[in-house]
Amino acid sequence: MKNELTRLLGIEHPVILGGMLQIGGARLAAAVSEAGGLGTLGQRPSLEAWHDEIKKTRSLTDKPFAVNLPMHAAELDKRIEIVIKEGVRIVVTAAGNPKTVMPALHGAGIVVMHVVASVDQARKVEAAGVNVIVAEGGESGGMVARDRVSTLVLVPMVVDAVKVPVVAAGGIADGRGLVAALALGAQGVQLGTRFIATPECEAPDIWKQAIIRARETDTMVVPRGKAQGRVLKEDAAPGQLMAGEIAGMITATEPAAAVIARIMEEVEPAFKKIEEQVRA
Amino acid sequence: MKNELTRLLGIEHPVILGGMLQIGGARLAAAVSEAGGLGTLGQRPSLEAWHDEIKKTRSLTDKPFAVNLPMHAAELDKRIEIVIKEGVRIVVTAAGNPKTVMPALHGAGIVVMHVVASVDQARKVEAAGVNVIVAEGGESGGMVARDRVSTLVLVPMVVDAVKVPVVAAGGIADGRGLVAALALGAQGVQLGTRFIATPECEAPDIWKQAIIRARETDTMVVPRGKAQGRVLKEDAAPGQLMAGEIAGMITATEPAAAVIARIMEEVEPAFKKIEEQVRA
Repeated sequence: MKNELTRLLGIEHPVILGGMLQIGGARLAAAVSEAGGLGTLGQRPSLEAWHDEIKKTRSLTDKPFAVNLPMHAAELDKRIEIVIKEGVRIVVTAAGNPKTVMPALHGAGIVVMHVVASVDQARKVEAAGVNVIVAEGGESGGMVARDRVSTLVLVPMVVDAVKVPVVAAGGIADGRGLVAALALGAQGVQLGTRFIATPECEAPDIWKQAIIRARETDTMVVPRGKAQGRVLKEDAAPGQLMAGEIAGMITATEPAAAVIARIMEEVEPAFKKIEEQVRA
Repeated sequence: MKNELTRLLGIEHPVILGGMLQIGGARLAAAVSEAGGLGTLGQRPSLEAWHDEIKKTRSLTDKPFAVNLPMHAAELDKRIEIVIKEGVRIVVTAAGNPKTVMPALHGAGIVVMHVVASVDQARKVEAAGVNVIVAEGGESGGMVARDRVSTLVLVPMVVDAVKVPVVAAGGIADGRGLVAALALGAQGVQLGTRFIATPECEAPDIWKQAIIRARETDTMVVPRGKAQGRVLKEDAAPGQLMAGEIAGMITATEPAAAVIARIMEEVEPAFKKIEEQVRA
């Protein structure tokens, strides 16, 4: 599949690994990139650990990968220096307006993506100069916005509001979800929960097994600091394990490359099913 | 567009008006059915008022329409008698397992639809014998389930769990949403909020204008009796006016027939956009 997004990011398949704090490291990011998607290194509080993950990812794949860069990260200037020095081509800014870091990133030829949860945010970050907008619905796992607008509502409205390519995130784990995202005007999808349940993810096994056990009704939103996060209800560790509603669809761990291959194989039957009905 | 759902319901377009308490009356239901969709008469607490609406709808259209029948409705047996006597061909059961009313309805050749918010509910009502399942995500307006699973997550999981045709509801107001629903394996869509903002809907104008003003972040979920409902934050009548998140996309009132015509016109461009990327 080819479109403006795959060309801009230099990837084969429009499937992006969402940056995950602590558990989305080099091994997982490299596996996703090697499989033709876009791996994203999640944030690490320690600057050194984070720098090591970037070097490790680079040693594991020659393909493009992205690095998550929250605007509130400690030593933000140093992180930007490292990103540039290490030749990272794609940065995902988050949590705050990326306006101030754009000159440095664009000056180094870096493509900047940003995750938003509303149309207003999308307009603001486009004005700040980001190249790709990830529109993340409130069914997603991990930190969620206060208003939690769903992916199905958010994506077409963001597509209408901005000119840059839009990626759909939240509630997606298969090829049907990717084709639905294309129908809404997105050019790709970002997945988090699906990639936790892979051998390459460094999340503890209890977390992966809880995702596999979960039904679609088994997540809830709980306070996390000043914000809120979507977690599994899970009796063993109530409110501790982050996951999106799509955990309900996930029934087994699967290597990252198999996840991407399966999603891309599912595109054609999903497309055919639409075609049959639209053309009937 | 033709599929199993349109054949079963005898409709031209797979666009269904969600049954709306008090405000979804004969004029709106008939307008939707006349335009080739499926109008659904919402519930009225008074048996006589409800009976009058059925007769009025029948006088306004020769096309199929549906009648909403919550299992907790007063004088349920009498309502079933009326439905049969008036020759209603489609009934939407809700709020409770429709098992006990199935023999009477199926005995009269009536097609039975049921709205669910989880995979478990879908399996139960299929086992009870319903002919069509409406999978409604938590972004929808009006009464919502406790767990509020999003449409994007719920629909493909329900499609995988049952054999009967599935309709997607919640978060849909345009042709992109319909094509996305088809991608997820649904055969049609059900809309509520979009049809409130029509001249045919008997909701007061303040309600329609509030939907038009609303952004996608302007709804919230509040307690409604023992359950909960999604309403507009709206300063003028906080928490009073029901609407789904998709209110954010709605920017004008539009006759019901124009809503359906526009949705069906938007199908082809949405389909083409997928085709271009999938075939590239």
